[in-house]
Amino acid sequence: MTTRVPVVEQILSANDQLAAANRARLDGAGVFTINLMASPGAGKTSLITSTIEALREEFRIGAVDGDLASTLDADRVAALGVPSVQVNTGGTCHLDAAMLQSALPQLPLESLDLLIVENVGNLVCPAAFKLGAHRDVLIASVPEGDDKPYKYPPMYRGVNALVLNKIDVLAAFDFDVAYFRRGVETLNPGLAFFPLSCKTGEGLEAWLDWLRGEVKAYKEHN
Amino acid sequence: MTTRVPVVEQILSANDQLAAANRARLDGAGVFTINLMASPGAGKTSLITSTIEALREEFRIGAVDGDLASTLDADRVAALGVPSVQVNTGGTCHLDAAMLQSALPQLPLESLDLLIVENVGNLVCPAAFKLGAHRDVLIASVPEGDDKPYKYPPMYRGVNALVLNKIDVLAAFDFDVAYFRRGVETLNPGLAFFPLSCKTGEGLEAWLDWLRGEVKAYKEHN
Repeated sequence: MTTRVPVVEQILSANDQLAAANRARLDGAGVFTINLMASPGAGKTSLITSTIEALREEFRIGAVDGDLASTLDADRVAALGVPSVQVNTGGTCHLDAAMLQSALPQLPLESLDLLIVENVGNLVCPAAFKLGAHRDVLIASVPEGDDKPYKYPPMYRGVNALVLNKIDVLAAFDFDVAYFRRGVETLNPGLAFFPLSCKTGEGLEAWLDWLRGEVKAYKEHN
Repeated sequence: MTTRVPVVEQILSANDQLAAANRARLDGAGVFTINLMASPGAGKTSLITSTIEALREEFRIGAVDGDLASTLDADRVAALGVPSVQVNTGGTCHLDAAMLQSALPQLPLESLDLLIVENVGNLVCPAAFKLGAHRDVLIASVPEGDDKPYKYPPMYRGVNALVLNKIDVLAAFDFDVAYFRRGVETLNPGLAFFPLSCKTGEGLEAWLDWLRGEVKAYKEHN
């Protein structure tokens, strides 16, 4: 497999250059951007719609939804009346900076404060491809199990905030929050952590406070 | 991205050759082999341990557990006293045929009837890398949501059987089984389908009957 390594490095380097260009474009427009990553079904779109509903009076929000196929997620976001672009990767297992670059001209960037990018559902590959977002956020979910930090360390190591979704079903699953957090702390000490339920709304306010603070701090310095 | 295509094709072709060699090695030893794929936390290891516990008196079973890191899964299987090999991919998002090739000499193949390979938790990438197994099996789970066939078609299209795990929590999630199955049927008509709960044991017998039949049919003709 050693013959693959130079090719992978070359792709990542090209991706990093495009990610830097995306960041410059976003900063030029003053749009704070988060890259939401998670396993399939952890609740990315649910967190996005909950966040838009809660913050739409405070910030002008747009969304990019990445999926292998379908427009199901973008449809859910577009139904809220915010600018939304679906990126179908055509089978590719992650968004990359080139895909985000292609999506940006389809959004009214100069009229946005916050852009939420939903990556492809995958706990591995998206960690290796920076998009140029200001913050990378991981959504874990209770039904996935408490051992995921131990088994998927690159993703947990690389993010700026961690949401644990579906805490409303904690009782139905054998999920040890302390064990989960010990795994996270080993990989990413002091990581911002937001246990919540998009379904019931429990815990959502702490996540919204964090995001609100991040957007405001960015806008003050940009 | 077009420059990546020839490289990917080259890797897949090399992988297919190694997969064919694995199949020949497995057939030489008479070991029926399944490749279990799923999102992180769908219940691959739980299905494997349930299956081993149920069928260990009928068949001699071994396991290969793929993960980015840790030996948590192999430890769970080894605790049952069956031959088990952990493959740590070191960050790679799937098992490939070369990894299985490296694992096979660590197993007493001539003394096995059934080998269960647990792939890395990922609903995208493993679909592209055949291992040489006789059957590819996907485990979906209720908390992931009923829209996954629509959003991850390559995986659903390529498998020989589909398990839907965690049906014990159907009531707690907004999962429309009919909608899920319509998506599956469009991609993979007539796919063998086993809704079950590893936790309660409900539905497990149908899965075991299918697997039992597959192993017996294989042994009769090999």
